Amino acid sequence: MSLPEPLERLISVFKRFPGIGEKSARRMAFCVLQQPESFALAMAEGLIDLRRKLHPCAVCGNITDIDPCSICDDPFRDRTLVCVVESAEDLISMEQAGIYNGLYHVLGGKVSPLEDEELDPDKLQSLKQRVIDLSVQEIIIATNPRIEGDLTFFEIISYLKGTDVRISRLAYGLPVGGSIEFADRVTLHAAFESRVNLDKYPR
Amino acid sequence: MSLPEPLERLISVFKRFPGIGEKSARRMAFCVLQQPESFALAMAEGLIDLRRKLHPCAVCGNITDIDPCSICDDPFRDRTLVCVVESAEDLISMEQAGIYNGLYHVLGGKVSPLEDEELDPDKLQSLKQRVIDLSVQEIIIATNPRIEGDLTFFEIISYLKGTDVRISRLAYGLPVGGSIEFADRVTLHAAFESRVNLDKYPR
Repeated sequence: MSLPEPLERLISVFKRFPGIGEKSARRMAFCVLQQPESFALAMAEGLIDLRRKLHPCAVCGNITDIDPCSICDDPFRDRTLVCVVESAEDLISMEQAGIYNGLYHVLGGKVSPLEDEELDPDKLQSLKQRVIDLSVQEIIIATNPRIEGDLTFFEIISYLKGTDVRISRLAYGLPVGGSIEFADRVTLHAAFESRVNLDKYPR
Repeated sequence: MSLPEPLERLISVFKRFPGIGEKSARRMAFCVLQQPESFALAMAEGLIDLRRKLHPCAVCGNITDIDPCSICDDPFRDRTLVCVVESAEDLISMEQAGIYNGLYHVLGGKVSPLEDEELDPDKLQSLKQRVIDLSVQEIIIATNPRIEGDLTFFEIISYLKGTDVRISRLAYGLPVGGSIEFADRVTLHAAFESRVNLDKYPR
């Protein structure tokens, strides 16, 4: 049985979303049919607005509708710290955790030989330029804790050679709330290697 | 941190899809940002087309862009059989299985006291009318195998009282390819109750 063309077409568009297969895409298309027409119109308008109004911040690469973005423009942010992330999604996760008050630099990619992906040299150059031009004291590299993230990390530090900025990386170790029983061996190894000396703790 | 307004808005629209939560909706919105603008435009157009070009078939309630739908209009279909389903999604699943060659009748709902949902009396009336006006010999009730489906089933047969059409229901039993070990007790009970007599099999 062939579905009506408009239904078939929307399903094939929905299937291009990550993690959405045939069945989910079909359920979404039927949801559009069952909801009032205003739902489809709001989504259509939202899609076009999203593409037309948002762009990467010219300074840090965060997704924004103003330039520079609200983070780069915030006078209460610590301008001596720049956290380097792979994507704007990672930036948003950090902001929503509310644990960091410095600036960001979004690479918009990672080093992945398997996916034939390289870092955009402009993004590395603009990071170096920010370090040189502004009073950045520390670059915190927050690439994802996996092979691609590590390769990305090494590429960033080799690019920053010759600058005297302090460079750090997020700690690897046991995820808080997790359990040792289920920790994988690489994480356990990292937790051992980076164990914290407690000599100075009162006993 | 508040996200840019167009991003926030599209995420809240995506969250109205069944099974899509905050994280998935955010990933979808970012996917729209990362894909070329043509993706957003195709989806926007698809959404509007879907709502404007598709409607329920006037005869059976199937989703269609022509009237009557391609199933009702198909001269090779067995017009003596009408399969009653809760939704057009169910109809599509059956068509894709390719195991049935009769007509359909989509109720567009079910009896669900918990969700305060009732059957549309017009759909029941039009089913009765099809039985009376046309040479329908058998109504196959294919409501979902759960409480709401059974309530719907009883409502349909009580509505068809007074007609002499044959009425049947899909068999309940072990799903083929499943295992008895993991079958629930209601399914096992149904499988016992509806056990098939093998006296006539050669031995």
